[in-house]
Amino acid sequence: MYSNKILRVLKGKKIKVGDRIRLIKDKGVYEGILMPRIKMGNKDSLIIKLKSGYNIGIEFDNKTRIERLGKGRKLGVIPKLKIKRKKKLPNVSMVATGGTIGTHVDYKTGGVFMCRSPEEILSTTPELMNIIDLKNTHRPFTLASEDMTYKHWQEMAKLVAKELNSGCRGVIVTHGTDTLHYSGAALSFMLRNLSKPVALVGAQRSPDRGSFDGSINLICASYFTGYSDIGEVALVMHGTSNDNYCLVNRGTRVRKLHTSRRDAFQSVNEKPIAKIWTNGKIEKTGIEYTKFEDKKVIVDHKFEPKVALLKAFPNSDPSIIGWYLDKKYKGLIIEGTGLGHVPTGESGIEMGKFDPKMSWIPYIKKAIDRGVTVVMTSQTIFGRVHPYVYKNLRLVSETGAIYAEDMLTEVALVKLSWVLGHTKKKEKIREMMLTPLAREINPRTDLNSVVKSV
Amino acid sequence: MYSNKILRVLKGKKIKVGDRIRLIKDKGVYEGILMPRIKMGNKDSLIIKLKSGYNIGIEFDNKTRIERLGKGRKLGVIPKLKIKRKKKLPNVSMVATGGTIGTHVDYKTGGVFMCRSPEEILSTTPELMNIIDLKNTHRPFTLASEDMTYKHWQEMAKLVAKELNSGCRGVIVTHGTDTLHYSGAALSFMLRNLSKPVALVGAQRSPDRGSFDGSINLICASYFTGYSDIGEVALVMHGTSNDNYCLVNRGTRVRKLHTSRRDAFQSVNEKPIAKIWTNGKIEKTGIEYTKFEDKKVIVDHKFEPKVALLKAFPNSDPSIIGWYLDKKYKGLIIEGTGLGHVPTGESGIEMGKFDPKMSWIPYIKKAIDRGVTVVMTSQTIFGRVHPYVYKNLRLVSETGAIYAEDMLTEVALVKLSWVLGHTKKKEKIREMMLTPLAREINPRTDLNSVVKSV
Repeated sequence: MYSNKILRVLKGKKIKVGDRIRLIKDKGVYEGILMPRIKMGNKDSLIIKLKSGYNIGIEFDNKTRIERLGKGRKLGVIPKLKIKRKKKLPNVSMVATGGTIGTHVDYKTGGVFMCRSPEEILSTTPELMNIIDLKNTHRPFTLASEDMTYKHWQEMAKLVAKELNSGCRGVIVTHGTDTLHYSGAALSFMLRNLSKPVALVGAQRSPDRGSFDGSINLICASYFTGYSDIGEVALVMHGTSNDNYCLVNRGTRVRKLHTSRRDAFQSVNEKPIAKIWTNGKIEKTGIEYTKFEDKKVIVDHKFEPKVALLKAFPNSDPSIIGWYLDKKYKGLIIEGTGLGHVPTGESGIEMGKFDPKMSWIPYIKKAIDRGVTVVMTSQTIFGRVHPYVYKNLRLVSETGAIYAEDMLTEVALVKLSWVLGHTKKKEKIREMMLTPLAREINPRTDLNSVVKSV
Repeated sequence: MYSNKILRVLKGKKIKVGDRIRLIKDKGVYEGILMPRIKMGNKDSLIIKLKSGYNIGIEFDNKTRIERLGKGRKLGVIPKLKIKRKKKLPNVSMVATGGTIGTHVDYKTGGVFMCRSPEEILSTTPELMNIIDLKNTHRPFTLASEDMTYKHWQEMAKLVAKELNSGCRGVIVTHGTDTLHYSGAALSFMLRNLSKPVALVGAQRSPDRGSFDGSINLICASYFTGYSDIGEVALVMHGTSNDNYCLVNRGTRVRKLHTSRRDAFQSVNEKPIAKIWTNGKIEKTGIEYTKFEDKKVIVDHKFEPKVALLKAFPNSDPSIIGWYLDKKYKGLIIEGTGLGHVPTGESGIEMGKFDPKMSWIPYIKKAIDRGVTVVMTSQTIFGRVHPYVYKNLRLVSETGAIYAEDMLTEVALVKLSWVLGHTKKKEKIREMMLTPLAREINPRTDLNSVVKSV
């Protein structure tokens, strides 16, 4: 709630939350919709939603003037798109799971709600119905993506497969952006034999903002699923800060790399598969991809949930691994430094002796001896880990830890869960982890044999 | 050791490890130095160090021909630079701590050793002595950077300050690249009142390779410390894959972003301070920096070691926080998703109920109630966390967790250790964490007040 001082002024001017107002302070003039006061923050500040969609908080004092301009938006009403089918257009279905792309601001409470139905989500993008024939829409759950778990991934995979196997050309999945890349990897591993386009789509900005990116992302995803010859899971998101094109980022080779930019998603260690312009033009980048084919997809959705991700850092206490052993974890991803290093407890010649408490090596060894799979990735994000270049890397790899090549940490995490859901055999686990199952690894260049940088 | 088959052939041709050889197989001709067989890998492959510095492993079979070309390099001898002082040049000192920049390959064993003395390290870069007058050299320890700890940071800071306060214009610190950015942050916080250039320099490729980057990095660091008007800690590393210029990346705003590229270090959320060309030209980018001044630096090196970094991910078990509480940790950095999210245990409307076991919120709250400082950063690397945009963010921030603005996770980790080494008062900790102490935070733009995107 606003302070009593502000409430008195608002009452005097007959201004209610949700009204359009003008506020003048110092040399600034601010017009927009009066928003409710959020729980935290300065109670003496008025919150106005500007036309750009941004909220601004302006401290109200004796020199501040305020006027009512008129009624604001209707409160608490979410527009809905009436879905009209055009049967000549390509058949695409949609699975709506939540996230910013389907949010709605309630101007009465200031709260941001997630829309419940695909018809609500699509109200921002009626153009979509001139591109594809929206065959079926599903809403298995409505969730912020930070709360996605295995069961949500499995539910998504089942619905996507059901649609693809009943004649759809492709499926669009709307999803929050926070863990969009984890879900992209999960779908890539679960959808075996996939040869049709599956687009994961989110938005970095909400529909009430002028910079909403969800419409363009949905339009590009419609062209991708309805018209492209690409038969893979991809994250279709803005390629730049402008509204000119989206990138088709392979589900296993992409990562969120900015908290808020619209082009936050970037392919790592390879190019995106294609650019899709808002007019429907699809421009390939030249990398290999799975070609569209009309064949059945198989859902293989077993995961081992006891898999965790740890990050090594200076002064880190490796005995944390003991906690995971006590909890009966089956797999650990260690995000090391550089080429896949962890602290080894060396102290340097003049600084005293080796400190076994600081070394990760015996803990990794202990985990592996107990049957836990340990996989090394790098916190540098880009590049490829390597088990041989330096002595300290060999110390790690000699424990039996698997060096995950150029796989992203997040992808290695999802893959390890999936692999451990399929086999308990040590050699089979290693083989599966090091074999590309959904183009998540780019095998190294080969000169008749192995090229190594020692 | 090589297989007996290979050893027999080598013996017959009087070829020894370390000799220059030519190997012909299929259509390939490979010339280089015969390296010893490393412990792992195929014993039937010969390892040759090519002129480029790369090692190549070639499987030896009946069709492989091999010839001795001559004697290779002298075994086990590390060249040394004789340091000649030119007193008219600017006074700069050096602290050598280890890392790839000072490695040497022993052609007898194939092992990579770290050089012990600055004279050995500098043997790759005699040009340096025409740029600066190398006043003093120190070798406090010789360590791979993955093994750096507080005590090493403190030792570095003391030596750097000692040199700066006894008349040096600047100091070059050579260091492994894995944790170069953690050390950059640590030095930035410890060296209070700093107004002279301190360069942290490493190499991504070892001196035995044609692509060795350490010389150019040392040359640019010499220009930076000897001639620039910048009075800050900076990582001076390759700006591109070519040998044209280095970037002066602020110690608190940079991160290793590739396992092996020479331009692996990139400034995050701001531009680097300057480019330095190999001819000494210093080109500023226009961002603000601390100007050179000849005044005393103060070493303030207290750290609280009980600080850890955790990464939140889908399906992560938040009860891991309990382990840190049991171990009496004082500070936790949680690298969340997106704007600083953690799983909240929501399951979505159709997927069953809230699952308190999956929610990080009560665990964060418990930690804070016990006096532990919890700081939120983002695993997106780029961008700024935000405590208000979504309901789930407010749930976290209402526990009292500190949202670390646009600070890098690694920098937040080092800073929290440093801050907790200075105060135990909750409000003071929050104030220090959110106040830029070494330009590690870029305060948000301000329109008389706070601009928020809700």
